[in-house]
Amino acid sequence: MNNFIYYNPVKIVFGKKTISQLENLLPVDKKILLIYGGGSIKKNNVYNQVLGATKGHTLIEFSGIEANPEYKTCLKAIEFAKVEKVEYILAVGGGSVIDAAKFIAAGVLSNSSNPWETIVKKGEISGALPIGTVLTLPATGSEMNSNSVISNRDIEEKAAFSSPFVFPEFSILDPEVTYSLPPRQVANGVVDAFIHVLEQYLTTDINTPVQDRWAEGILLTLINLGRKVMDNPTDYENRCNLVWAATTALNGIIGVGVDQDWATHGIGHELTAMYGVDHGQSLAIVLPGLLSIQRKDKEVKLLQYAARVWGITQGDKNVIIDEVITRTSLFFQSVGVSGLCSDYGIDPEEAAEKIGEIFNKRGSLMGEHQNITGAVVKKILLNRQCLY
Amino acid sequence: MNNFIYYNPVKIVFGKKTISQLENLLPVDKKILLIYGGGSIKKNNVYNQVLGATKGHTLIEFSGIEANPEYKTCLKAIEFAKVEKVEYILAVGGGSVIDAAKFIAAGVLSNSSNPWETIVKKGEISGALPIGTVLTLPATGSEMNSNSVISNRDIEEKAAFSSPFVFPEFSILDPEVTYSLPPRQVANGVVDAFIHVLEQYLTTDINTPVQDRWAEGILLTLINLGRKVMDNPTDYENRCNLVWAATTALNGIIGVGVDQDWATHGIGHELTAMYGVDHGQSLAIVLPGLLSIQRKDKEVKLLQYAARVWGITQGDKNVIIDEVITRTSLFFQSVGVSGLCSDYGIDPEEAAEKIGEIFNKRGSLMGEHQNITGAVVKKILLNRQCLY
Repeated sequence: MNNFIYYNPVKIVFGKKTISQLENLLPVDKKILLIYGGGSIKKNNVYNQVLGATKGHTLIEFSGIEANPEYKTCLKAIEFAKVEKVEYILAVGGGSVIDAAKFIAAGVLSNSSNPWETIVKKGEISGALPIGTVLTLPATGSEMNSNSVISNRDIEEKAAFSSPFVFPEFSILDPEVTYSLPPRQVANGVVDAFIHVLEQYLTTDINTPVQDRWAEGILLTLINLGRKVMDNPTDYENRCNLVWAATTALNGIIGVGVDQDWATHGIGHELTAMYGVDHGQSLAIVLPGLLSIQRKDKEVKLLQYAARVWGITQGDKNVIIDEVITRTSLFFQSVGVSGLCSDYGIDPEEAAEKIGEIFNKRGSLMGEHQNITGAVVKKILLNRQCLY
Repeated sequence: MNNFIYYNPVKIVFGKKTISQLENLLPVDKKILLIYGGGSIKKNNVYNQVLGATKGHTLIEFSGIEANPEYKTCLKAIEFAKVEKVEYILAVGGGSVIDAAKFIAAGVLSNSSNPWETIVKKGEISGALPIGTVLTLPATGSEMNSNSVISNRDIEEKAAFSSPFVFPEFSILDPEVTYSLPPRQVANGVVDAFIHVLEQYLTTDINTPVQDRWAEGILLTLINLGRKVMDNPTDYENRCNLVWAATTALNGIIGVGVDQDWATHGIGHELTAMYGVDHGQSLAIVLPGLLSIQRKDKEVKLLQYAARVWGITQGDKNVIIDEVITRTSLFFQSVGVSGLCSDYGIDPEEAAEKIGEIFNKRGSLMGEHQNITGAVVKKILLNRQCLY
């Protein structure tokens, strides 16, 4: 096991009717900026619940945070928060709104003339406003971590930062508010959470049994629940378990002391920036090729994944690995997320060429051994599993 | 899933040579009380490592904390800390030293004339000195939770409290410092951690798959490692995994949203208070009878435990449950912890009578449904699995 530091001070408030607890969780003596997205929280009654619980608080609003939150929109929110002398951020929404909140919270306390370079790309953060969240979509884990991903459409880039200053103070997870989510968002969330786990699990580390078993436990749960949640959207217990699986998939605890491989996310971000595919869709496109290309490096773990998660134990190693990659893709398809470029009107050869070049130019390397170059990215995107 | 709040702000610093990080983790402007036990840390070089890392700090010492830390000893430490105007507690040791540190940290800031009643038995705590720890024994999980158990030998009682004020700020877990532990302590730690997991897992809750899989992951890890660690005490990877299994067994995360049943600990504490058996030994004595008596209530979970952890799937339900209880006891025996009263010179009839009476008089109820009375305690201790 590698040496590690684990620290996660987020208070999780989980369960039915917990939004009412905002009353006690939020400070009464601070001016609070409520941020949210396109208004779905007004349709599903979350907005009313939030207002009902914050009658004794000073709240102003900033709405219109996009899926894959846009840098320019966040800059407007930062400007607004500075003018209004906001002291606390309350993010109500999914991972995009929470990610935006983290950038805004850091941006308000920054004097940088170029926050894209300093905060987003370099993670240079020396403070942030406190953040509370009400989660409405299980997917990114942002409600219980210190990560944020921001998009800059002007330059077709998506970049991530992490800082202990942007851990939410608290996150409210009421599974009932997820009942009305569109199936496409649920499905993307399932795929996102699943791949978060795989990126911490499918590495060359082979002697971390607690982390492995915990990763497998989340994967088994997502496989069992993914389709059920979509077929019975108001089953409370299943919604609970999906929310908790997505949160634990990326709250850091399953990844302690192990090597990690975030190349699927790295390449996927570029697919989303370039072609506008959903985040979950981009991951479903990239993963199969990546696993196929890296099968030698990750062989022991891929076989363990096949055996413990999919019950595949018989056969030639390569056949097992092919099968488990296919089974994984079929699972994504079963909830409605295709991994095929053709289903999104993307020409894989063009995508491979353009995205490979981006990584070549950037000179950045990915993967647990930092050996995924632009040339490897091209191979991954041209792998047959992405093409057909 | 039950509604829950999860909050755990302890920073875990894990791995080789991490004691040196005390230099940066401890405040330089505060007077620190180093507390430890009987001096084993002077033999295994931990004491020297601590002193080496704290040359720039103001440190005074209080040693002699016992296994099952004694109330009177803690009171002396509180008095000493008050006179010396200590501002920070550094606990170096196992769960006993860390539990003592929590009580001392709360006691220093309390004006109670009877801390046994107010702090230990009622958990009335409105503040505590900050605490840092260096863990030397994987067992209790105290290094990453807010619980403490204190013994009062004058009245033959052991009592537990919990308060968010006594979370350690940080805990250093260097698996190398556990190489020199006596086998008996390692074995007790394995049993303690194992039963911590069972007490959060073997309940009537049956729809919390992430929590269940995580519990099973720790159990499988402990079963696989228990004997190996004792046979190869300097295998670093195994030590890492044992330390992490014991910490995660009681850092709260596997028990969120589920009913819990801490009756084994409740009854075990009285056995230790009355007969002086080790904490781990007391649990190994109590558990089999408790599971046997509660087999109907816990049937679904006992069968899941049998199937997923022990691979026992065939046969009549009662036979499977008998077998899994026996297998659990045999596992404890395999690391050297007997569950038989006779091996400790305890007359089970006397123990059942006296401990049953304690719970009768106290009127306190235990178990997930709060239905374990003094009479049930007697039955548990007279169950055949405790007698032979």
